Amino acid sequence: MTHTLKQLEIPSTLRHDLQAVEDRIMHRVESQSALITAAGQHLVSSGGKRLRAMMVLLASQLGRYRLSDSLHAATAVELIHAASLVHDDLVDDADRRRGKVTVHAKWDQGVALMVGDYLFAVAAGEMALAPDPRVIQIFAESVMTISASELHPVMATLPTATALEQYYAKIGGKTAALFEAAAAAGMVCGGGSPEEIEAAARYGYDIGLAFQIVDDILDFVSTEETLGKPAGNDLREGTITLPLILAVKDHHEHPLVNLLDRYEQLSDAQVEQAISQVKQLGGIDQAIAEARSITQRGLAALDIFPPSAAKELLREIADYVLDRHF
Amino acid sequence: MTHTLKQLEIPSTLRHDLQAVEDRIMHRVESQSALITAAGQHLVSSGGKRLRAMMVLLASQLGRYRLSDSLHAATAVELIHAASLVHDDLVDDADRRRGKVTVHAKWDQGVALMVGDYLFAVAAGEMALAPDPRVIQIFAESVMTISASELHPVMATLPTATALEQYYAKIGGKTAALFEAAAAAGMVCGGGSPEEIEAAARYGYDIGLAFQIVDDILDFVSTEETLGKPAGNDLREGTITLPLILAVKDHHEHPLVNLLDRYEQLSDAQVEQAISQVKQLGGIDQAIAEARSITQRGLAALDIFPPSAAKELLREIADYVLDRHF
Repeated sequence: MTHTLKQLEIPSTLRHDLQAVEDRIMHRVESQSALITAAGQHLVSSGGKRLRAMMVLLASQLGRYRLSDSLHAATAVELIHAASLVHDDLVDDADRRRGKVTVHAKWDQGVALMVGDYLFAVAAGEMALAPDPRVIQIFAESVMTISASELHPVMATLPTATALEQYYAKIGGKTAALFEAAAAAGMVCGGGSPEEIEAAARYGYDIGLAFQIVDDILDFVSTEETLGKPAGNDLREGTITLPLILAVKDHHEHPLVNLLDRYEQLSDAQVEQAISQVKQLGGIDQAIAEARSITQRGLAALDIFPPSAAKELLREIADYVLDRHF
Repeated sequence: MTHTLKQLEIPSTLRHDLQAVEDRIMHRVESQSALITAAGQHLVSSGGKRLRAMMVLLASQLGRYRLSDSLHAATAVELIHAASLVHDDLVDDADRRRGKVTVHAKWDQGVALMVGDYLFAVAAGEMALAPDPRVIQIFAESVMTISASELHPVMATLPTATALEQYYAKIGGKTAALFEAAAAAGMVCGGGSPEEIEAAARYGYDIGLAFQIVDDILDFVSTEETLGKPAGNDLREGTITLPLILAVKDHHEHPLVNLLDRYEQLSDAQVEQAISQVKQLGGIDQAIAEARSITQRGLAALDIFPPSAAKELLREIADYVLDRHF
């Protein structure tokens, strides 16, 4: 595990196509309502690396690629991502995301709610421009999965045989479903066979799982400076994530097991101590190993494709997802 | 203005097709998440008369009708309607709708938010099954309009030259846009020409306007028993609607003009008095006249279609919308 910030090297042709997606997103966020436009731009401008759009484009490139065929699906996935984040932040009443103030905190809850709806609708309009109606089905199902997973019951106490299962179900819905949809939709746009679409979907799903596991690890190992919020945020909110689950897997009597029963009363010192304990018990290292293994499984799904620049970039995305910020 | 409750007579063939829509809605609301299923069923089971689905089916029947071609658009419009109501109630923090407890009051805000998102996504999946991708564009644009209109700035004080304009813009987005989309999508499914689609859209929009005007009139003339909430609700919430606008149109010095400046402090007696004054100044009668005139304009848009049973039913829907509950 290196502590350098790994950069994803994006070739200029892909960068050009991603810029077209970016332009399209900004164009589609413009509304006759000044408030929608402002809140929408605020939201999508903090959109990060556009990994999901990249996955659409690269999965298409495993097949028969034309930017005009894949542009709308790539735009749609980022709009869905933005819409789902703004509603997610509303449910969680989060004030900040990536260090930037959230829409409901900057404007109000009504604005956050309606901007989310607006962006979902724009995304639906975009999908309809994709060359294959299966793109709409794929994204519609991903949004159904994301919404339902947000209401997934809170996990029972640790350690349970089902804690791990519940964790994977939760992050599968919360994060992996949209990566899965991105890769599958991209392959559909690239004219893939059912087998190829399935392979791309499995790649996307696993990279999405790894992405969320790494996010959950970062919540333990980051500093406030790199994370944009204090470490141990999940513990403070009573959210059980993989490092904690794996830390107590073989230590059923450890105080960590019942720590989150009273998560609202945790002091900063207790959170710091818990983070140290999770590290000492190997929770972080084991979670990293899991993320690596899931990433390998995802990459293996791409074995059916011959070597290509796109396949190599999909591999680099997997490396990037694993190594970012460590 | 009669005070009998006018019934819409629905022929058995249409009733049969509406039942197919109903079955499809209930089927699509079922989710692996028990909570989504329960909240979704709660929501769509209070769905009223399915006027929007009816409009899809009947507009299709102006052209080349096959239930299998129109079923998905009819299902989608009711799902969109349900999704938009649950988010609307969340923004307004309304506890009841049609006398039934709202989703966020029965469960919580997170459930209301996610069930709305879920239903929007199901609707997108349904639209993708329609025989023409324009159906998706039409509904996507209607949801964009609905969301943006919810954020429309609150109206300036009365009387202003723009009060009427703002009112129509608001109810155009809030209510008419989805009726417009229903009729237009139905005509698309029926294989209509651009001119026919435009005519259906204009019919739907105007019936939608009339529908909302009548709703706003009912808020003045109904009893708690028929309305499911106390009369004068809009006044209590500071919402300026057509009866009030028209009541003070020629009475710029009347106390009603500034009544809503301090709407939060209105006593029950003051609301009752205001309702009486709006009636005395002819606000109700003029609003009814406006609704009738708009309905006539909408029906005139159907002149390009030859006489048919479907056209006759669309006329009866217009009558029903005007006369319900008066």
